[in-house]
Amino acid sequence: MADTVLFEFLHTEMVAELWAHDPDPGSGVSAGPRGEEAGATKGQKMSLSVLEGMGFRVGQALGERLPRETLAFREELDVLKFLCKDLWVAVFQKQMDSLRTNHQGTYVLQDNSFPLLLPMASGLQYLEEAPKFLAFTCGLLHGALCTLGIESVVTASVAALPVCKFQVVIPKS
Amino acid sequence: MADTVLFEFLHTEMVAELWAHDPDPGSGVSAGPRGEEAGATKGQKMSLSVLEGMGFRVGQALGERLPRETLAFREELDVLKFLCKDLWVAVFQKQMDSLRTNHQGTYVLQDNSFPLLLPMASGLQYLEEAPKFLAFTCGLLHGALCTLGIESVVTASVAALPVCKFQVVIPKS
Repeated sequence: MADTVLFEFLHTEMVAELWAHDPDPGSGVSAGPRGEEAGATKGQKMSLSVLEGMGFRVGQALGERLPRETLAFREELDVLKFLCKDLWVAVFQKQMDSLRTNHQGTYVLQDNSFPLLLPMASGLQYLEEAPKFLAFTCGLLHGALCTLGIESVVTASVAALPVCKFQVVIPKS
Repeated sequence: MADTVLFEFLHTEMVAELWAHDPDPGSGVSAGPRGEEAGATKGQKMSLSVLEGMGFRVGQALGERLPRETLAFREELDVLKFLCKDLWVAVFQKQMDSLRTNHQGTYVLQDNSFPLLLPMASGLQYLEEAPKFLAFTCGLLHGALCTLGIESVVTASVAALPVCKFQVVIPKS
């Protein structure tokens, strides 16, 4: 009964705990428009990178547990499709809603009701709170891609809760 | 595929992260025999209580998600049996191995292969590392009992990895 929500509860606690221990709450930097880290303090930025690092290592570990047959991907796009289906189902019990690419190494993965944002009200009023609920998952995608042999830069953006876009950029070698 | 291990990976990262941020690593206190907190620094004790607090809140939240019919427990022992079966399966995909009681409010729940200790080698050599992998689960039991209306004190002990005993003491009112 509870295993589907266990991860979400634990993630919520983890975010709350890391935010609560912000060692430097006073040094807000309000440069730039409302964006992922605009107005974040130094301590909050550190918390974001800590969350992202945890996600990265969990993503790596999950990547190592994938069934052998799924590792025989022919193309980059197959790997991204795999993340959108299998990985997303394993972690969030749902598939990603859409995957778009410019066929030049940039992919946009869109989840129209991202589970880690669902507890927040829909709309714009809590938009500033969103980045801390996305950092772990950015790391998770980055880590899983890394285990599958693909270097990447993963960022997330939210225009209106609970819709979330993850952008994966894979540098051409 | 991965949802059964996701919680365990995340728990491992959480313990590592909280331990890494030990703000006071130098003040070891080596009083007492090898026990749960013997030799633990002030920072490590704080980490233990942070982990326990996170477990408590997750346990409370899981408790609130229980099916209605399971909440109609007649006796204290029914509640403990429920934790050993349903809660344990939900979190660890296995049942507790044994439950004993003195019929005076003290219960000993024994797991012969506690999943969060399994990654460590069996035997005695890493026994000192065990407490940090037990704090969250102590809190989890405490929190679930709290939601079910039962005040308790929950502690854990390990005599040989990966066997773990959780002691639940319920004060008589």
